[in-house]
Amino acid sequence: MSMAVSANRRKSIVILGGGFGGVYTAMELGKLLKREPDVDITLINRENYFVFQPMLPEVVSGSIGILDTIVPIRRLCPQVNLFTREVETVDLDAKVITTSPGFWPQPRKLEYDYLVLALGTVMNFAGLPGLQEHGLPFKTLGDALFLRNHILHILEEADIEEDRDRRQKLLTFVVAGGGFSGVEAIAEVNDFVREAAKAYRRIDLNEIRLVLLHSGSRILPELSEDLGTFAQRILERRKVEIRLNTRLAGATGEHVLLDGGERIPTKTLISTVPSAPHPLLAALPCRKERGRIVTNEFLELPEFPGVWAVGDCARIVDHKSGQPCPPTAQHAIRQAKCIATNIVATIRGTARRPFTYSSLGTVAALGHHSAVADILGVKVSGYLAWHLWRFFYFMKLPGLDRKLRVAIDWLLDVILPMDIVQLKIARSASISYEHFEPGEAIFRQGDWGDKVYIIMKGEVEIVREEPGKGEILLTKQGSGDCFGELALLSNAPRSATVRTVTAVDALTIDRGAFNSLLAGFAPLRKIFEQMSQERLEKDKERLGPTAREIP
Amino acid sequence: MSMAVSANRRKSIVILGGGFGGVYTAMELGKLLKREPDVDITLINRENYFVFQPMLPEVVSGSIGILDTIVPIRRLCPQVNLFTREVETVDLDAKVITTSPGFWPQPRKLEYDYLVLALGTVMNFAGLPGLQEHGLPFKTLGDALFLRNHILHILEEADIEEDRDRRQKLLTFVVAGGGFSGVEAIAEVNDFVREAAKAYRRIDLNEIRLVLLHSGSRILPELSEDLGTFAQRILERRKVEIRLNTRLAGATGEHVLLDGGERIPTKTLISTVPSAPHPLLAALPCRKERGRIVTNEFLELPEFPGVWAVGDCARIVDHKSGQPCPPTAQHAIRQAKCIATNIVATIRGTARRPFTYSSLGTVAALGHHSAVADILGVKVSGYLAWHLWRFFYFMKLPGLDRKLRVAIDWLLDVILPMDIVQLKIARSASISYEHFEPGEAIFRQGDWGDKVYIIMKGEVEIVREEPGKGEILLTKQGSGDCFGELALLSNAPRSATVRTVTAVDALTIDRGAFNSLLAGFAPLRKIFEQMSQERLEKDKERLGPTAREIP
Repeated sequence: MSMAVSANRRKSIVILGGGFGGVYTAMELGKLLKREPDVDITLINRENYFVFQPMLPEVVSGSIGILDTIVPIRRLCPQVNLFTREVETVDLDAKVITTSPGFWPQPRKLEYDYLVLALGTVMNFAGLPGLQEHGLPFKTLGDALFLRNHILHILEEADIEEDRDRRQKLLTFVVAGGGFSGVEAIAEVNDFVREAAKAYRRIDLNEIRLVLLHSGSRILPELSEDLGTFAQRILERRKVEIRLNTRLAGATGEHVLLDGGERIPTKTLISTVPSAPHPLLAALPCRKERGRIVTNEFLELPEFPGVWAVGDCARIVDHKSGQPCPPTAQHAIRQAKCIATNIVATIRGTARRPFTYSSLGTVAALGHHSAVADILGVKVSGYLAWHLWRFFYFMKLPGLDRKLRVAIDWLLDVILPMDIVQLKIARSASISYEHFEPGEAIFRQGDWGDKVYIIMKGEVEIVREEPGKGEILLTKQGSGDCFGELALLSNAPRSATVRTVTAVDALTIDRGAFNSLLAGFAPLRKIFEQMSQERLEKDKERLGPTAREIP
Repeated sequence: MSMAVSANRRKSIVILGGGFGGVYTAMELGKLLKREPDVDITLINRENYFVFQPMLPEVVSGSIGILDTIVPIRRLCPQVNLFTREVETVDLDAKVITTSPGFWPQPRKLEYDYLVLALGTVMNFAGLPGLQEHGLPFKTLGDALFLRNHILHILEEADIEEDRDRRQKLLTFVVAGGGFSGVEAIAEVNDFVREAAKAYRRIDLNEIRLVLLHSGSRILPELSEDLGTFAQRILERRKVEIRLNTRLAGATGEHVLLDGGERIPTKTLISTVPSAPHPLLAALPCRKERGRIVTNEFLELPEFPGVWAVGDCARIVDHKSGQPCPPTAQHAIRQAKCIATNIVATIRGTARRPFTYSSLGTVAALGHHSAVADILGVKVSGYLAWHLWRFFYFMKLPGLDRKLRVAIDWLLDVILPMDIVQLKIARSASISYEHFEPGEAIFRQGDWGDKVYIIMKGEVEIVREEPGKGEILLTKQGSGDCFGELALLSNAPRSATVRTVTAVDALTIDRGAFNSLLAGFAPLRKIFEQMSQERLEKDKERLGPTAREIP
């Protein structure tokens, strides 16, 4: 790309983000600029597909095929250059975007004349202890597939678990957040779990428990009170427990913690609540309101002409009503069309138009052939609303081929049994984080040694059950200390129990990664060998000459 | 399970492995023992589904939906208890199986009266340098999906790559092994790449190169010479380069190494060649031949009555012909039926029957509506063989619902464009291994710092390009040494180039894992800080007071 400024050099439009805002801007620009070969349109997105978000919950239950709610961006916008990369930096002054590297470690720079920011929001679990480590997000296609496989893994384990408490813990599923996405998620998960469990010989359907936590006094605050009440009745009839006025306070690998101190034992917490501005936006030197980029009536940034913002990352005020737009797909699509028109008008030097749009209505699916909807002020609920929901989104689904595939999926869903294939494609992370509340056992004497723990924050006590002596406190450990390496170094069961004294955040390294690191890197091996030696000697001192050697 | 021996205590049959051998044994036992409530049948498999292997290549191109070649084992064998776990140990004397732990770190023990070993084989990359690290296996459903996404990732990057050599490297795909699975894999990958590439605006179809490496003098040695020649002609007409009498010698992240020293630059090496006995078998105290378990004419282990072996992990001799059985699905299915009958006969004390079966024939798909087949001695090739291939496997596909889904997939495949969605569900491994050949640059001065390297084997030289002085050798490093941490600690570009002197095996830790480890674990941080400090000082000494500081 040449930096030389000349009257008729090629213009470059760069769009950041491939959600509703970004993709519809690209599609519209592609159409409007079809006969203008001097304009390059580039879209940067970390995936090469567009997710039709409203149908995402159906991916969980498998009633829509995995690939059928997503559309390759290259097919939607054949005139657009797609960069399947992450955006690393945005320089509004130099008008340069840097993307992450591909197969080789060199980032890529792209210059622009016009820029569209369509970065959306990200899940933000910060603030609540343990949520980052143990909460399951529900936003992307990857999240939906992960959740589906996690639920099937839970059912597999519950089927062979003989301990009653553990089985009950496995079969409890908690969803936090009673807004649109929380309600749609729990409705779909409820249908899926109860139907799929029938294929498991030893799962008692009465042991399955689904809990929806909501901080407000009624679910679906986006809709009118009677629709919210209707939805609540429907879900309760399908055995979903709804806990109103209940706030999530944290999570560990073994339970969900509520505000009053109550603990719900579970291995599954789905969180739909917190969303935050995209981290790239914080660094931008433009005006923001609650993290969202402020735009003028043409959806352009007042301080940076040529830069536009669309969708959930932008603060957009309706020109007619003066009201801020809600973060919905409907609005993002209309905003995208307005931006495309205005960019073309800017290029051609013609008049631009201010943004205005009033919503058609809202609809939420409740699973199992029912829904609630508010369409142009008319309230609909139940079976009819569900059909409206399907029809509405089906018509909106971009691409004829996806329409055909989804139609067939829906048809097969009626006649075929639910699919219960658990797809383990993801390699498990070798290094990760865990959170524990006070008084929890991190592992128990006699357990199989699966990982090493490094304490980031908090305190633990290490105790051992000695025959005839009961439980003996061996030592306490705090921030920066490491434990659990003995069982891995000696390939023996855990020789002690480790219990938290305070809340603990820990970094864990699994057996494979630990062995690789130790085998390759002598200085690290020395640290661990020394540490183990010291621990064993201290141990002997304390317990006297009669103490049994740790294997 | 009670250990007490009594005449009519429950009997337990345990089957290890969920391939053709294991699943068909379980299905058959389920049928034969339907009215015998005193016998428990348990199947242990790491996945909860059965893969219909012959259709796996079609998953790569997406002509069959991801989930449609696989069948949930619980649906196939509703009478069977499924343990979705890994087998950890087999104790033939105590008659106890130990499985891996589930959500909690305690392994599970299972006692058996009758045991069926159906563990199959595993890919074995040992022996050839770099294959373990850089070769893509093609055996499981996970492999097929990984390969599909890798190819789409390659196309995404090739589309935006401006360097000609790199683009050529990206667009070269190498398959090692000209037997059945190698030929079917390259045929399918060829169809897929050439069709999918049409959706990429800046990929020139003439740059795409597919190479099949085969050590023998003709491909498909399993079939007669004329069918092999026919297959070769078909593939060559579709622009596949076939390199006969060519042996793979190794691989790095940048190229494939051939026996004579030739290097083919590529990012994609698919290996179908080496398969080895399952690692669990090595520890078993029974007779083996080339790693396979030796069985008697009833498919039972002579030294361990009550233990049977089936499929690829067993050495089975046909009772009539005296010939050893080939490792095919056809044979495994017949063996499974024989074993099920013999186990039931043993329980009931009736006569058992020896195993005999003669093959119906073989068929290999060549992609794009052609195939070669040898059916009861009749040779068929081309379009007709392809229809036979489809019909044959379609009839064998277990479960009516899969039949329906596959039929619809095939139908849609004809009318819809090829799907090019790249599904990134797998988190990338934070710790992994890489192999380099002599004289390769591991990274270059100015590159973005993405990981830290620990040398397991071999030697590297670290050099720097100094303005006016040319390239200066900074130091050499060998086994156990570590490099690359500077750029990560200082967040600056690479300050030097690292080049291999000999072949090098390295352990790599990516930026995220390295930062986590350093933040949490003070002793490790100290090691790295000290190391960097020493390196900087040595650097200064060597280059004198005028040397520029490393940022």
